[in-house]
Amino acid sequence: MGLQHKIGLILIAFTLGVYGQKQPVDYVNPFIGTSNFGTTNPGPIAVRGMVSVSPFNVAGPKNLPLEKDSRWLSTPYVKENTFLTGFSHLNLSGVGCPELGVILAMPTTGELEVDYLKYGTSYSNEVSKVGYYSNTLDDYNIKVEATATTRVGVSKYFFPAGDANILINLGLGLTNEQGATIKVVSPTEIEGVRSVGSFCYYKPEEAYPVYFVAQFSKPADEFGVWKKPTTYKGAEAEWMGYNGKTRIMPGYAMEVVGDSIGSYMRYNFKAPTVVEMKVGISYVSIENARENLEKETSTRSFDQILAESKENWNGYLSKIEVEGGFEEDKIKFYTALYHTLIHPSTLNDYNGDYPKMRTRETLRTQDTRYTVFSLWDTYRNLHQLMSLVYPRQQSDMVKSMLQIYDESGWLPKWELNATETTTMVGDPAGIVIADTYLKGVKDFDVEKAYMAMVKSADQIQDNPLRPGLKDYLEKGYLTTKTTNSGSVSTTQEYNISDYAIAQLAKALGKKKDYQRFSKRSISYRNLFDKEFNLLRPKNDDGSWLTPYNPEDGANFVKNLGFIEGNAWQYSFMVTHDTKGLMQLMGGSKPFVNRLQDVFDKGHFDMANEPDIAYPYLFNYVKGEERRTQQMVSELLDTYYKNSPDGLPGNDDTGTMSAWAVFSMMGIYPVSPSNPIYTITTPRFNKITIHLDSDYYQQEKITIISNFSEEHRFIDNIKIEGKPHKGYFLSHDELVNGKTLELKLDK
Amino acid sequence: MGLQHKIGLILIAFTLGVYGQKQPVDYVNPFIGTSNFGTTNPGPIAVRGMVSVSPFNVAGPKNLPLEKDSRWLSTPYVKENTFLTGFSHLNLSGVGCPELGVILAMPTTGELEVDYLKYGTSYSNEVSKVGYYSNTLDDYNIKVEATATTRVGVSKYFFPAGDANILINLGLGLTNEQGATIKVVSPTEIEGVRSVGSFCYYKPEEAYPVYFVAQFSKPADEFGVWKKPTTYKGAEAEWMGYNGKTRIMPGYAMEVVGDSIGSYMRYNFKAPTVVEMKVGISYVSIENARENLEKETSTRSFDQILAESKENWNGYLSKIEVEGGFEEDKIKFYTALYHTLIHPSTLNDYNGDYPKMRTRETLRTQDTRYTVFSLWDTYRNLHQLMSLVYPRQQSDMVKSMLQIYDESGWLPKWELNATETTTMVGDPAGIVIADTYLKGVKDFDVEKAYMAMVKSADQIQDNPLRPGLKDYLEKGYLTTKTTNSGSVSTTQEYNISDYAIAQLAKALGKKKDYQRFSKRSISYRNLFDKEFNLLRPKNDDGSWLTPYNPEDGANFVKNLGFIEGNAWQYSFMVTHDTKGLMQLMGGSKPFVNRLQDVFDKGHFDMANEPDIAYPYLFNYVKGEERRTQQMVSELLDTYYKNSPDGLPGNDDTGTMSAWAVFSMMGIYPVSPSNPIYTITTPRFNKITIHLDSDYYQQEKITIISNFSEEHRFIDNIKIEGKPHKGYFLSHDELVNGKTLELKLDK
Repeated sequence: MGLQHKIGLILIAFTLGVYGQKQPVDYVNPFIGTSNFGTTNPGPIAVRGMVSVSPFNVAGPKNLPLEKDSRWLSTPYVKENTFLTGFSHLNLSGVGCPELGVILAMPTTGELEVDYLKYGTSYSNEVSKVGYYSNTLDDYNIKVEATATTRVGVSKYFFPAGDANILINLGLGLTNEQGATIKVVSPTEIEGVRSVGSFCYYKPEEAYPVYFVAQFSKPADEFGVWKKPTTYKGAEAEWMGYNGKTRIMPGYAMEVVGDSIGSYMRYNFKAPTVVEMKVGISYVSIENARENLEKETSTRSFDQILAESKENWNGYLSKIEVEGGFEEDKIKFYTALYHTLIHPSTLNDYNGDYPKMRTRETLRTQDTRYTVFSLWDTYRNLHQLMSLVYPRQQSDMVKSMLQIYDESGWLPKWELNATETTTMVGDPAGIVIADTYLKGVKDFDVEKAYMAMVKSADQIQDNPLRPGLKDYLEKGYLTTKTTNSGSVSTTQEYNISDYAIAQLAKALGKKKDYQRFSKRSISYRNLFDKEFNLLRPKNDDGSWLTPYNPEDGANFVKNLGFIEGNAWQYSFMVTHDTKGLMQLMGGSKPFVNRLQDVFDKGHFDMANEPDIAYPYLFNYVKGEERRTQQMVSELLDTYYKNSPDGLPGNDDTGTMSAWAVFSMMGIYPVSPSNPIYTITTPRFNKITIHLDSDYYQQEKITIISNFSEEHRFIDNIKIEGKPHKGYFLSHDELVNGKTLELKLDK
Repeated sequence: MGLQHKIGLILIAFTLGVYGQKQPVDYVNPFIGTSNFGTTNPGPIAVRGMVSVSPFNVAGPKNLPLEKDSRWLSTPYVKENTFLTGFSHLNLSGVGCPELGVILAMPTTGELEVDYLKYGTSYSNEVSKVGYYSNTLDDYNIKVEATATTRVGVSKYFFPAGDANILINLGLGLTNEQGATIKVVSPTEIEGVRSVGSFCYYKPEEAYPVYFVAQFSKPADEFGVWKKPTTYKGAEAEWMGYNGKTRIMPGYAMEVVGDSIGSYMRYNFKAPTVVEMKVGISYVSIENARENLEKETSTRSFDQILAESKENWNGYLSKIEVEGGFEEDKIKFYTALYHTLIHPSTLNDYNGDYPKMRTRETLRTQDTRYTVFSLWDTYRNLHQLMSLVYPRQQSDMVKSMLQIYDESGWLPKWELNATETTTMVGDPAGIVIADTYLKGVKDFDVEKAYMAMVKSADQIQDNPLRPGLKDYLEKGYLTTKTTNSGSVSTTQEYNISDYAIAQLAKALGKKKDYQRFSKRSISYRNLFDKEFNLLRPKNDDGSWLTPYNPEDGANFVKNLGFIEGNAWQYSFMVTHDTKGLMQLMGGSKPFVNRLQDVFDKGHFDMANEPDIAYPYLFNYVKGEERRTQQMVSELLDTYYKNSPDGLPGNDDTGTMSAWAVFSMMGIYPVSPSNPIYTITTPRFNKITIHLDSDYYQQEKITIISNFSEEHRFIDNIKIEGKPHKGYFLSHDELVNGKTLELKLDK
């Protein structure tokens, strides 16, 4: 621990002395991930909330080079930017594509100005805590505070005396979709619709509306709307003096429709005055947005809502209690856990209404209908964390996947607000489902789930989840002719999915399927090339892609074999068949050497999913486990920090954070749909995981170690006091074992 | 009568032989005015209906030169155009500025095509009657029939077997305003909103929404929406492969928002099938549009609705019965009367809801709230016709004007759907109100009306009705400095308005006001220039505008003195002071010569309002009345025809038609707000006007003459059998006289 750490600890100790014991919620630093393309944001959000209230500072040339339209930027907030143009009420966290970032509210003073390039301002005094954000808008001397319930953003604007404005700008957003309607219902209410969609620049035909109702604690002295119309073309346009010009419509009480529209509430305050604004959201209707607002916030003050949010968050975060270790690690840990509790998030309204997949008819659910399933990312660890710590949520997530199947005929791949974005590759939902079931979280219709999994595994025609399935079934792999990118990596993904089906088939007593899919799951072996001792794409005729450089694809360069990566970054991604891979490579020694090469030669990419289990693979070779402990420790120290750049890159809806949560607990679900964990050094002396009694027999499990600056390597492992052999343990061993004890040495 | 006339008569006689006696409604030819910029349309409409169903054939290069975006075009339909892109459900009739022409429906066959340039088609077999329109769409072999209730357009599409589509296109319209939302509610219903506004390219900030619900008699086999988004700019747009491209969204069940959007119902018919579509409209809400639809059409078939429409129209048209004369004149007469019963039209919903002026809060009325008040036109004769024949409607129109005053603080000038467009000049509402009251139609709050009239006459600051009022009050006239166009003509308009106030003041016993406004009403005399014996603009210092050519302003060329005209076209427009003008000109002889010069020298413009009373002014000089009879007869024969070009120009919401109605009856309300008529040759042998017993004591009045090809000039006049002196009679003489008998000679 350096001097800085010590000072930090002294300050924390002092704080605790004054205010009492620090809660998990107090360790969360929502600024982590707001730089270095982490794409998290510091806006307050409830646990798995539909709504967050993020400062929006990515529009306008003052924010260059991290300006939203000047590049592929996928976050409403970047820590190093300085020009704020409002607070957006719908935001994705930790994603790699621009979307949402809409329903922007902005308080200003003085004359009404509706051009965000003019009303935008720098800001200071930023504070972000769980459920809370605050800053001061420099140009206006307005302090802003924000909090949120599941479906309602709540803001407080501290206006100085004089003219004041609250703008709702529907023209601005992170999304590339356009179109909105807005209507001032009364001097205390605005309602509207904003179109969003085209995540990752895909599927514009599935663009969809979000509905909102904004209510204000003080009636506006004046209100109105504005519209900047599209510039009209044609000879007739010569007559249109107003062509393309922004128009203000004071006192207007009906819908205004357009791409660039907004609404304002205007006040004249004799003395400094606080206005509270609540913005309720729905994906179904304005009426539901209003009901969400009223049911979730009606009689409660900002402070009550904030307190409830904090308490609720603390309840979730406290499901894992950590003791000992570094204070910085606690911040990293609880912030990571916080990030895993944002997505998947809530789609349904308070009354259970939610939109059907794609066509968006209104359906109703009893449970939570979750959305934002970035499954190519999250199948690797996030859902495993949920099954362990929040099985009720995980169960509802599986049920949501099955609703998606019911509605669309297919399990999700990358579902977002009832649209299947078909982003990324593979068929990951079944892996999550199998993993969940095999962890004992079974309160869903497993037969239906199984049928859905087999459907995407077997249906050759019109299969949106497994393009290239014909080649895969006939040859065992996709070829360079099957797809123009990722023939090897997609084969690997299908293999893992087939493995998951096999595991579930086995559990369900479907022996033939178990055999069939087990066999299919190792077909990647056909693509193992002894020449490079790595995977290599094959052509349609079965020949190797030639010439071939296994480094092709580094830095996300598009290539025939691998999606977002190269042979180094993918060859070990056969987590279900690591021992098979080892044989292919010629045994444990060559395997370890080749794996070490990945790190030593700079191929390892902590910021992308294919490699993230790599550090744990040394555990498969007896005697090499220290490499895992060493590597995980280094990665945690290098890429995870208590600072805005404290994530390796996109958080990938919590996947990078889930990696940190598991890694810091010393266990990692190294093989999705295989209910095992592999073990590394925990970062705390005592970790208590409180188990949900609806799903688990034990109340809690405890991981104990003598971790310290000096004690970082595992000497021996005990479960319930009994020595444990090897660096793997099953889920049952973990959850029934009560205590996992790790003796560390230097 | 030429040969053609005789053949026509034979055919009509034959028709009557088969089908019985011809009703007034059978004489209406809705194609009159659909060419020569008459800007009427042949779409079915109820009496003063909110909705009409007009064929829309003004979009796309195939309609050049009369294409909507290539010029200032103000009608959804032009007879000589050939390329139809749908049927628009909201249309203005006889106006001079583009507006509405929205909510376009189009039936097609075959593959779905949503680009109107591609799905548009030529058509044939056009039929238009009162309440009915039909054609056949050539490219699709679809017969279309349409009718309408007050607030609902009803269409029948006769599809051949095979694939069929019904498109609702909200991207296309005559209006220059943009923005719409659309939603398929079910396989039999679509709802939406379309923005309209900016009449005459003014006041974009008062653009407003119209709401609609479309219901279909057969559930669609498939449905969906489409959107053509605005083209996105910026570096990020490089990623957007869909940028600016039309997208189809099959099965989509939520709102879509945008400038260029639409919705489709799609069928596959085994056999030829008729689909009936009802489109309900509201200016208040979708709910009201649906209620309008259900209340007005729910259980009734197309044929029932059509029969009711026809019957209702016939009832109104039959208030004036004509006998004898030419059959062609009956067509011209009843078509003109039909055109006077279109605008002002209905703004309020079935339940009484209507939008408040400008801000568009929802208000409710017991009576009909009328809209489309083109008062600079209609104050001259249309409202006089209403007071005489349809006093209940006229009363409601005055009440609507007072509602407008209550809501906005000002009487209307050119009100359109709860926006004050401020088109044209002057302060005409008070003239209508005074005229109405003095005709005995008094069931409105006359004291409020009077107050409103005086307000616009006296309030110098922020007066939207009388710009330049300060100069007018101080100098008696507007100067070339006061306004950049129309200083003289606006002075004349204010004079006439002041005269109206004076007349109403007199009737209400307000003697001082009577004197004050009487004096003000003749201040135009200051602008009479002996040099030209015409009116002439004055400069701010009281000097004449020099150099000066009284012909400046012909052909609508903008000029300092006169709006849409020149000194010739305006100098006699002092209908309240014709005798004063006569004195200024040096007596009756020079007056008659100067007036005759207007016609002989080609200055007279039948197509614009300032001159339309000119032909009647000869009646003010004893012995010169034959000139009036000659001139009116010639104008009726020259400019009014039973053909698409059968109006002098823009119908001006019925003003040109009202001129024809009065002129063909032989009476004309030559001096607005002065309850007199002047007399000319009627075109029929017997004209019976059925009076409304709520307002008049007599059941009817009769105008009898021996008009024929050979008898065109008045020899003597009798009222109730007693000789009548002169060519004027008061309203009381007319409505109490029972019979006006005109003896004609050659």
